[in-house]
Amino acid sequence: MEQIRRNFASDNVSPACPEIMEALVAASSGSVPSYGGDPWTEHLRIKIRTVFENDHAEIFPVTTGTASNAIALSTLCPPWGVIFCDESAHILNDECGAPEFLTGGAKLQPLSSPDGRILPETLQQTLGKRDFSRPHDNVPSALSITQATEWGTVYSIEHIRELTDQARSSGLGVHMDGARFSNALVTLGCSPAEATWKSGVDILSLGATKNGAMAAEVMVVFDPTRAANMGQRLKRSGHVWSKQRYISAQLLAWFDNDLWLRNAGQANAMATRLASGLARIPGVILPWATESNEVFVVLPDLLAQHLEAEGFGFYRWDTPSGLEGVLIRLVCGYDTRTEDVDALLESASTI
Amino acid sequence: MEQIRRNFASDNVSPACPEIMEALVAASSGSVPSYGGDPWTEHLRIKIRTVFENDHAEIFPVTTGTASNAIALSTLCPPWGVIFCDESAHILNDECGAPEFLTGGAKLQPLSSPDGRILPETLQQTLGKRDFSRPHDNVPSALSITQATEWGTVYSIEHIRELTDQARSSGLGVHMDGARFSNALVTLGCSPAEATWKSGVDILSLGATKNGAMAAEVMVVFDPTRAANMGQRLKRSGHVWSKQRYISAQLLAWFDNDLWLRNAGQANAMATRLASGLARIPGVILPWATESNEVFVVLPDLLAQHLEAEGFGFYRWDTPSGLEGVLIRLVCGYDTRTEDVDALLESASTI
Amino acid sequence: MEQIRRNFASDNVSPACPEIMEALVAASSGSVPSYGGDPWTEHLRIKIRTVFENDHAEIFPVTTGTASNAIALSTLCPPWGVIFCDESAHILNDECGAPEFLTGGAKLQPLSSPDGRILPETLQQTLGKRDFSRPHDNVPSALSITQATEWGTVYSIEHIRELTDQARSSGLGVHMDGARFSNALVTLGCSPAEATWKSGVDILSLGATKNGAMAAEVMVVFDPTRAANMGQRLKRSGHVWSKQRYISAQLLAWFDNDLWLRNAGQANAMATRLASGLARIPGVILPWATESNEVFVVLPDLLAQHLEAEGFGFYRWDTPSGLEGVLIRLVCGYDTRTEDVDALLESASTI
Amino acid sequence: MEQIRRNFASDNVSPACPEIMEALVAASSGSVPSYGGDPWTEHLRIKIRTVFENDHAEIFPVTTGTASNAIALSTLCPPWGVIFCDESAHILNDECGAPEFLTGGAKLQPLSSPDGRILPETLQQTLGKRDFSRPHDNVPSALSITQATEWGTVYSIEHIRELTDQARSSGLGVHMDGARFSNALVTLGCSPAEATWKSGVDILSLGATKNGAMAAEVMVVFDPTRAANMGQRLKRSGHVWSKQRYISAQLLAWFDNDLWLRNAGQANAMATRLASGLARIPGVILPWATESNEVFVVLPDLLAQHLEAEGFGFYRWDTPSGLEGVLIRLVCGYDTRTEDVDALLESASTI
Repeated sequence: MEQIRRNFASDNVSPACPEIMEALVAASSGSVPSYGGDPWTEHLRIKIRTVFENDHAEIFPVTTGTASNAIALSTLCPPWGVIFCDESAHILNDECGAPEFLTGGAKLQPLSSPDGRILPETLQQTLGKRDFSRPHDNVPSALSITQATEWGTVYSIEHIRELTDQARSSGLGVHMDGARFSNALVTLGCSPAEATWKSGVDILSLGATKNGAMAAEVMVVFDPTRAANMGQRLKRSGHVWSKQRYISAQLLAWFDNDLWLRNAGQANAMATRLASGLARIPGVILPWATESNEVFVVLPDLLAQHLEAEGFGFYRWDTPSGLEGVLIRLVCGYDTRTEDVDALLESASTI
Repeated sequence: MEQIRRNFASDNVSPACPEIMEALVAASSGSVPSYGGDPWTEHLRIKIRTVFENDHAEIFPVTTGTASNAIALSTLCPPWGVIFCDESAHILNDECGAPEFLTGGAKLQPLSSPDGRILPETLQQTLGKRDFSRPHDNVPSALSITQATEWGTVYSIEHIRELTDQARSSGLGVHMDGARFSNALVTLGCSPAEATWKSGVDILSLGATKNGAMAAEVMVVFDPTRAANMGQRLKRSGHVWSKQRYISAQLLAWFDNDLWLRNAGQANAMATRLASGLARIPGVILPWATESNEVFVVLPDLLAQHLEAEGFGFYRWDTPSGLEGVLIRLVCGYDTRTEDVDALLESASTI
Repeated sequence: MEQIRRNFASDNVSPACPEIMEALVAASSGSVPSYGGDPWTEHLRIKIRTVFENDHAEIFPVTTGTASNAIALSTLCPPWGVIFCDESAHILNDECGAPEFLTGGAKLQPLSSPDGRILPETLQQTLGKRDFSRPHDNVPSALSITQATEWGTVYSIEHIRELTDQARSSGLGVHMDGARFSNALVTLGCSPAEATWKSGVDILSLGATKNGAMAAEVMVVFDPTRAANMGQRLKRSGHVWSKQRYISAQLLAWFDNDLWLRNAGQANAMATRLASGLARIPGVILPWATESNEVFVVLPDLLAQHLEAEGFGFYRWDTPSGLEGVLIRLVCGYDTRTEDVDALLESASTI
Repeated sequence: MEQIRRNFASDNVSPACPEIMEALVAASSGSVPSYGGDPWTEHLRIKIRTVFENDHAEIFPVTTGTASNAIALSTLCPPWGVIFCDESAHILNDECGAPEFLTGGAKLQPLSSPDGRILPETLQQTLGKRDFSRPHDNVPSALSITQATEWGTVYSIEHIRELTDQARSSGLGVHMDGARFSNALVTLGCSPAEATWKSGVDILSLGATKNGAMAAEVMVVFDPTRAANMGQRLKRSGHVWSKQRYISAQLLAWFDNDLWLRNAGQANAMATRLASGLARIPGVILPWATESNEVFVVLPDLLAQHLEAEGFGFYRWDTPSGLEGVLIRLVCGYDTRTEDVDALLESASTI
C-alpha cells in the first residue's frame, strides 16, 4: 500500500486520473483535422448535449478555468458592463483581472454573503438601489454564480432559480463558474440540466481539471446567441489548440461511465469524513457547512502549526471576523483516500 | 505495415509522438505543487538554460503558439508601439489579432519580402523613412522574426544578426517566432545559443506542438528585464495551468536525447525528398527554397485536383503574382515516412 | 437685478465665468503652432510650476475630469494593478469604467469610510490583510484620494500625509482627484504645494471646469518619471487638441489674480450659508460637515418635494442607512449668490 | 492692414473664427442641464437633421477628430475586426493607434492608391482575395473613406457609391473621415445628404476644427442601430463634456448662414490660387490635383529652403518614388488671404 497522502492544499495538486491518461494515449494515433475538426470534439458535442439534455448547447473546450470563466463572461457583458458576483468569487479574487481583461474593461461588483452564496435579497437590493441609466454608470450585464462556492457550500436549485429570475428580470445574463460543478451535482442529486439551463443558467464554465483531468474545461453555452464570435474570442486570446483532440478526449473520458460523478463522489465523501472528524476535536470550528470537497476550519494556531510540522499541506486564509484562531482550507481530491483523511484526523487529535 | 498517410495539410494534424505520451503518463503520479512549483518545471528551466547555454534565461511554458507569440510581444512593445514583421508572418495573418489584443492595442507593420525573410534594406528603409517622434506616431518597439519562415525558408545567422543589429540601434526589442525553430536549427546546424541570443534575439517563442508534442510551447526570455510581470500577463490572459507539470514534462521529453532535433530532421528530410521529386515533374514550380519541413509548389490546377481526388490533404494558397497555376502547401511532420512522400510523388507523376 | 438662480444640481450647470471667456476671445488671434506648441501652453507650464513651487512638474491639459483622472491613473497603475479609492469615489461610480479602460483593465478596490475620507486604519488593514504576491492577485499599485471628497468634506494635510506615507511604504503611487481641489484649498488655507506634492501626491488631476472654466482640466505630474509616454497616452485616447491654446488660455486666466481661489471662495461661502440655514430647520439633518461647495442634507420627503415644486434643482441620493428621510445634494458654484441661497432657505422654512 | 500670414503648416494653426467666438460668448449665460441636456445640443440635433435631410440621424459632439474617428469606428468594427482604409489615412498614420485602442484591438488594413482615393478594384481584390472565414482571421468589418483625402483630392459621388456598394455587399459598415468634409462638399457642389448617407455612408465624422471652430467635431450616425451604447463609449473614454453647450454652440454657429461652406470656399479658393501659381514655376511639380484646401508640391530642395528662410511655415513629407526634389504640404485655412498666397508665390518666383 502507498504511503499516506498529506497534501490537502488543493484539488489541483493531484495528477490526472488513470482513465483520463488512458484516453489521451488512445487518442495519440492517426492524422486528424486540427482546430476542433477532429472526431473527439464532435463526439464530445453530442455527449454534452445528451448529458445536459439540450440539443442546442454549443461547447468550447479550453484548458484553464480562468479562460473558461473570463471568455464566457465576455459574451455576457460588454466592456462597459457590470458583473455581479459573491465577494468570495474566484473571478474577483484569484484571476489577476482576467475578467476585466477579456471583457475589455468590465467591472466586477462584489456582493457580501454569509457563506459564499449570494442572498437573493442582496442582489435585489443592489439592482434596485441605484439608477443605472445615467451615462456615467456601467451597465448591469451579468450575474456570476459559483457552484460549488469558494467556501465549499452548494446552492440549492430553488436558490439558483430565485437568483436567475431576478437576473433575468433586470436583463442580466447568467454565468455559472462550475470549477467544482461535479462536486455540487453529486450533493444536489439532480440532473445536470436542472442544475443549469433549466434553472436559468446561460453559460456554464464546467471544470474537469480539479476533478481528475490533466487540463480540461469546457464552456457549455445554453443560449446559442451567446456563442457568436466565440471562435474569434478564443483565437485572439490564444486559447485555440491545434491538436484539440487532446482536450476533447479528456472530457469524453470524464463523462464516460460517470467518471466525473464517481470522482466527485469520492472527493465529497472524504471531505465529509474529514469535516465530521474535525468537528469532534475541541477548539475546532467549521464556519461553513461542508457540502462539496472543501473543508474550512478555524482552529488554534498551535494546532495548525502542529499539522504543518507533521507534513500536512494546506493554505491559511483570513480568519472570519468574530472568530478566534486561524482559518485553514483542506481540499480533498478524487484521489484522497480514507487513510489519508484518518491520518490527518489522528494527528489533529493527538495534540 | 500501416496504410499510407496522405495528410500534408499541416504539421499539427499529427498526434503527439510516443516519447511525449510516455512522459505524460510517467508524470501522472504523486501530488505536487501547482502553478509551476512542480519538479518538472524546475528541471525544464535547468535543461533549457543548458541547451541554450544561458544561465539567466527565464522560461514560461504555455500551450499555444499564439499565446507564446502575443504574450512575448507584449513584453517588448507597449500598447502604443509598432511591431515590424514580414508580410507573411503568422502573428499578422493567422492569430485573429492576438498581438493587438495582448499588447493592449499595438500596431503590426508588415514588410514586403521575396521569400518570407525580411530584407535588411527594407527594415532600414522603413525605420529611417519617417520621423516617429511626433505625438501622432505609434512608437517603433519590436521586430519579430519568424524562423523558419512561413514560406519554409530559413534565415542564416548572418542575416539574423544584420536585422537584430539594426533593431537594436533603433531601440527595438527582438522576438523570434520559433513555431518551427527546431526545423530551422537542423538546417542551420549551429547551436541553439548562436541561433538566438548570441545573434541578438531577446525572446524566443519556441514551439514543440508542430514537432511532436501534444501542446507545448515555451517562451525563452534571454533578457531577464523582459520577464518582469510575466506571471501577471499569463494569469490575466488565462494561460497559467494549475497542473503545469503536464506542459513541462512534454518539453523535457522533447529535449531528452535530442528528440526535438531527430523529429525535426525527419520532417525536414521528408520535405526535401518531396521537393526534389516534385521539381522533376513538368509544369511544377517551387517558388521558394525548401529549407525546413514545408514545401510550397505552384502546379497546374488539374494536377492539384487530381491529388485532392486521390485523397491527399493540403491547403491552397494565393498564387504569387507572375506565376500561373495554383499554389499549394505540403507540410511534413515528424511522422511523415518515405512511403507517404513517395505515394504522393507517384500519384503526381501519373497524370 | 437678475432673477433668482434656483439650480443647485451641480457646479457644472453654470456657464464659464466672464474672465475665462475674455481670455478665450483674446486668444483668438494669430496663427500659432498646434498640439501644445503655442505660447499659452508654455506660459501655463511656467505659471503652474510657480503656483505649485515645483520646477520639475510636467503639465498635461485636457478637457474632462474623467480623462484627467483615468489617464493619470494609467501612469500609476499597470493593466494588472489595483487602485484603492473611497467607496464614494467618482472614478469608481461615475465614469462608466474609464479607469478600467484607460489603464487596460486595472481593478478599483473601494474602501468604506464614514464621510468620504479614507481612514488610514482602513487602508492599512486592506494593504496588510492579504498576501498580494500570488500570481493570481492583481498588484496593488495606486491610491486615489478625492480632495474635496464626494461628500463635500476636506482631508486635512496630516490626514493626507498619513495616507500617502502608507501608500509609499507599500509601493503605491498617489493620485489626487482634484475636481474640486480649489474649493478644498480655500478651506485648508495652505499652499498648493503643501496640499499636494509636499504631502506625498504624485499626480494631481486639477479641475477648473466645475469652478468657472468652460472645459479645462490639467494633470500636474510632480514625479517626472510618471510623465513618460503621456503624449502617446493622450493621443491614442483622442485627448490632444490641435488648438491647445484654448485649453491653456482658460487655465491661465483661472490662475490669474487668484481667480481660482476667489471663485472657490464664493462657492464655499454660499455652501456654508446654505448649510447653516438648513441646519436650523427642524427635521433637517446634515450627515457630513460642509467643508467645500457641496451641501448634503437629509430632509423629509415632503420638504424635498416642496423644494422641487418651487423650481429648485438638485439630485436625490441614496439615504445613508440609519437615517430617515431623503438625501439631497445642493451644490453652489462660483456664480451662486446670497439671494439664491436665501431664496432656497426661505422656501424651505415656509413649509 | 495686417501683416502677411506666412503659416501654411496646417489648417489648425488658425484661431477660431469670429462668428464661432461670438457664439461661445453668447452661450455663456444662464444655468442649463449638463452632459448634453442643454438647448444648444437640442437645436444642433434639429439643425443637423435638416442639413443632412435625415430625421433619424443621431449626433454625438466631441472635440477632437481622433476621438470622432476612433469612436465611430468602434461602433462599426468589433475588437477582432478589420478596417480597410487608404495607405495615407489619418486613422492609420496620425492617431497613435487610437482606432486600435478604442475598438479594443481591431486591425487596420491599408490599401495602396495613386492619390489617396481607394480604387474600387483594389478594394474588390482585397475583399475577394482571402477566405476570411477561418477562426484565425480578423473579420472584415468596416471601410473608412477620407473625404477630402489626405492628399487633398476629393472622391466623386460615383466613386463613393462604388466603394460603399462593395462594402455593403461584403457586410462592411462605412465610415467617412470628414475632417475636411466641408472643403470636399464645396468642391462637389452636391447636398450633404448626397455626399453621405444617400451614397452609402453609415457614420460621418464631421470636423469643424480645421475650418473655423475652436474644437468641435460631431459624429453623425445615419444608421441608428450604430448609435446604441454610444453614451457609454464616450463616457468611458473621457469624451463627455459636462458643459456640452460649448461644443454644440460652436457647431450651430458653423452651420448658421452657411458659415461652414463660406469658410471652406475661402480656403479652397486660396489653395487653388496657390496651386496655379506654383505650377507656373519651373521645376515645381504638383503630384496630385488640388481639389480642396491642401496643396502638395514637389520642388527643388533649394527652393524649399528659400521659402523656409523667408519665414513660410509648412511641413516636409516623404517624396513620392519616381520624383526628384522634396515634397511639401501647404495648407490654406478659412483665414488665408489673397495677399498671403501671393506673398508666397512672389517669394517662390524670385529664386
